[in-house]
Amino acid sequence: MSKNRFEAFSDGVFAIAVTLLVLELHVPDPRPGLPDAGLTQGLLALWPLYLVYAASFATIGIMWINHHALFHNVARVTYAILLFNLLLLMMVAFLPFSIEVLSKFGLSRGAVEFNGLIFLLIGISYGVLYYVASPTIHGPRTFAGYFTTWTWWNSVGFIGYFVGIVLARFSPLAGIIIYALVAVYYALPAATRQLLNEPSKPQG
Amino acid sequence: MSKNRFEAFSDGVFAIAVTLLVLELHVPDPRPGLPDAGLTQGLLALWPLYLVYAASFATIGIMWINHHALFHNVARVTYAILLFNLLLLMMVAFLPFSIEVLSKFGLSRGAVEFNGLIFLLIGISYGVLYYVASPTIHGPRTFAGYFTTWTWWNSVGFIGYFVGIVLARFSPLAGIIIYALVAVYYALPAATRQLLNEPSKPQG
Amino acid sequence: MSKNRFEAFSDGVFAIAVTLLVLELHVPDPRPGLPDAGLTQGLLALWPLYLVYAASFATIGIMWINHHALFHNVARVTYAILLFNLLLLMMVAFLPFSIEVLSKFGLSRGAVEFNGLIFLLIGISYGVLYYVASPTIHGPRTFAGYFTTWTWWNSVGFIGYFVGIVLARFSPLAGIIIYALVAVYYALPAATRQLLNEPSKPQG
Amino acid sequence: MSKNRFEAFSDGVFAIAVTLLVLELHVPDPRPGLPDAGLTQGLLALWPLYLVYAASFATIGIMWINHHALFHNVARVTYAILLFNLLLLMMVAFLPFSIEVLSKFGLSRGAVEFNGLIFLLIGISYGVLYYVASPTIHGPRTFAGYFTTWTWWNSVGFIGYFVGIVLARFSPLAGIIIYALVAVYYALPAATRQLLNEPSKPQG
Repeated sequence: MSKNRFEAFSDGVFAIAVTLLVLELHVPDPRPGLPDAGLTQGLLALWPLYLVYAASFATIGIMWINHHALFHNVARVTYAILLFNLLLLMMVAFLPFSIEVLSKFGLSRGAVEFNGLIFLLIGISYGVLYYVASPTIHGPRTFAGYFTTWTWWNSVGFIGYFVGIVLARFSPLAGIIIYALVAVYYALPAATRQLLNEPSKPQG
Repeated sequence: MSKNRFEAFSDGVFAIAVTLLVLELHVPDPRPGLPDAGLTQGLLALWPLYLVYAASFATIGIMWINHHALFHNVARVTYAILLFNLLLLMMVAFLPFSIEVLSKFGLSRGAVEFNGLIFLLIGISYGVLYYVASPTIHGPRTFAGYFTTWTWWNSVGFIGYFVGIVLARFSPLAGIIIYALVAVYYALPAATRQLLNEPSKPQG
Repeated sequence: MSKNRFEAFSDGVFAIAVTLLVLELHVPDPRPGLPDAGLTQGLLALWPLYLVYAASFATIGIMWINHHALFHNVARVTYAILLFNLLLLMMVAFLPFSIEVLSKFGLSRGAVEFNGLIFLLIGISYGVLYYVASPTIHGPRTFAGYFTTWTWWNSVGFIGYFVGIVLARFSPLAGIIIYALVAVYYALPAATRQLLNEPSKPQG
Repeated sequence: MSKNRFEAFSDGVFAIAVTLLVLELHVPDPRPGLPDAGLTQGLLALWPLYLVYAASFATIGIMWINHHALFHNVARVTYAILLFNLLLLMMVAFLPFSIEVLSKFGLSRGAVEFNGLIFLLIGISYGVLYYVASPTIHGPRTFAGYFTTWTWWNSVGFIGYFVGIVLARFSPLAGIIIYALVAVYYALPAATRQLLNEPSKPQG
């Protein structure tokens, strides 16, 4: 598999999934009695969904940036990379469904937990892909050796989504904000991230 | 980030967003009593939406052309460019939602204002991206220096969408026509645009 | 505009439009009283839509092949080509809407006429694009000179769709079959097409 | 037709079809009486559809991998390859419709049989494309000669889908599981497949 076509397919799925998100946002139907048929009120009431839209768009967008950085260093696309990349794309492509759930059920505890679960599965799939791709970057190594390059950077997503899912039990809005903050964290330039949590280690 | 993969992802989102627009157009359900089950009448009654569809398609299409021209001159895709490009794509990908609003609420004041707001946000995002990309084209410069290359060309969108939003209060149709005219303006070849408003300055 | 990025964007819109078609096909809701909840019957009753789906898919697919062949010979993507290509893509991207109309109104006269109208507009847009691109292939020439390379090949679409639209008044099914035959005609290898209608002229 | 643009278009349709699948999954509407408005229960009840989603995603994804491997060896994209590739893409792009059927009719016999039929048509289209592309890889040969490179690998899909369709009459779930197993079989690295059924022949 040439890296070119591999990247083109992955870019395609990332780009499509991110653009489909908006199809699951729905303005309420017009209500003839209200001023403006209830449009302004309806659009304003959707604000938690705009936040979810932005968080999801940013999460996929930034994952695409990191996916690109990862495969810039990968020497050869192995068959295992192909399969686990498909798994990651399957999870990423599932995100619009979680927007549909939030669209239908609003900012409720269950919907936000489900949203966090999908984010968590995306994070885990990316972690597994990173692990599988690792030998073609750093040479063959043991399972333990893999964790020697494990950094805060790799953990923030897991911890963040887990905290968000737990918080959603008490405040669904807080859960969504945590998911958005994870995206913001990964969007920070590497230098800033190092200042925040790993000033002395070289960034992986 | 290689310019190639950056452009491929951006092209993908532009192409998908523009093609999804049509999914938010809906013909009314058949009404058995009417001749032709009301189809011809229903299709003709949608004409303002065809105008919005054409204006939106043209706006994204022409923004894609200008996006391409901009990055043709960009020497290096910096991290800041990546992030603000994602912001622009997030706004562009939001446009189908504004078609849905117009589809549900018709050519009403609120729906056209909302449509103009999305166009304005797209315009602002493009302006910010242009500002962020500017140093890699013209070398480092001050915030003030950035505005030395600011031309009519850059202002027409902001002014046009603002005027359209204000006009929509009095005539929603006029608002849509203004948005379409903005797209037409940016579609004019550079030479024609210079004749119209900047005959003596070299076009940036 | 580099030909590469121009082609990538066009390919993207063709590929997306063709893949979105299926989203406008809808199986009827389950009807609990019927055996199999009415599924088999419902799926079989959709057969005219499968034909429309196939005709539309083939039309876009084959237009993409011809689009490719055309731009293989185009030396330079001019601004006019960019704009009229956008117009063609706008028409192509509109096709899913015409499937929605057929989905809702069935194989009725009005729906098939509308479908033919969209096909005709796509054909005209392609003709205009071909005209605009012509000078970069054959060198500058007059409007009359353009028609010296006009062949049966260029006319079949216009004639076919026009005949289909007229026939739809008497038999909607006949209209759809004509549209499908136009796609079949353009799908025939050049050699076969020459045998059919232009045995002595070199194929343009 | 350059192989590049041919592959870009095919990759596009594969990537879009696979990403659209999720749009046909629908969570049931909220039911105010139930705890959590019925969300958790509704999401859990969808489990057969998650399985179908995963099987469909994997089937298209792995077909894309094999499509890539096939065309890596194809020297020249002939006109016949173009047309039969379009046929394959038309079948692949139809898969979201079969998810819609399963979404509406649940894990019923008819819906699963229909799903298997689509998979079977995809498999047949791929087989025909492979046959058409074969001469540009192995040189011209007879119809019989084509079958000298026919292996278990090529047959598993046909047999699997056929068995799945028959099994669906007795247990719809068993049918879906068989379709998923076919995807798993094609996802196994070539080495494993050889161990399973063709230890002595070189893999085509």
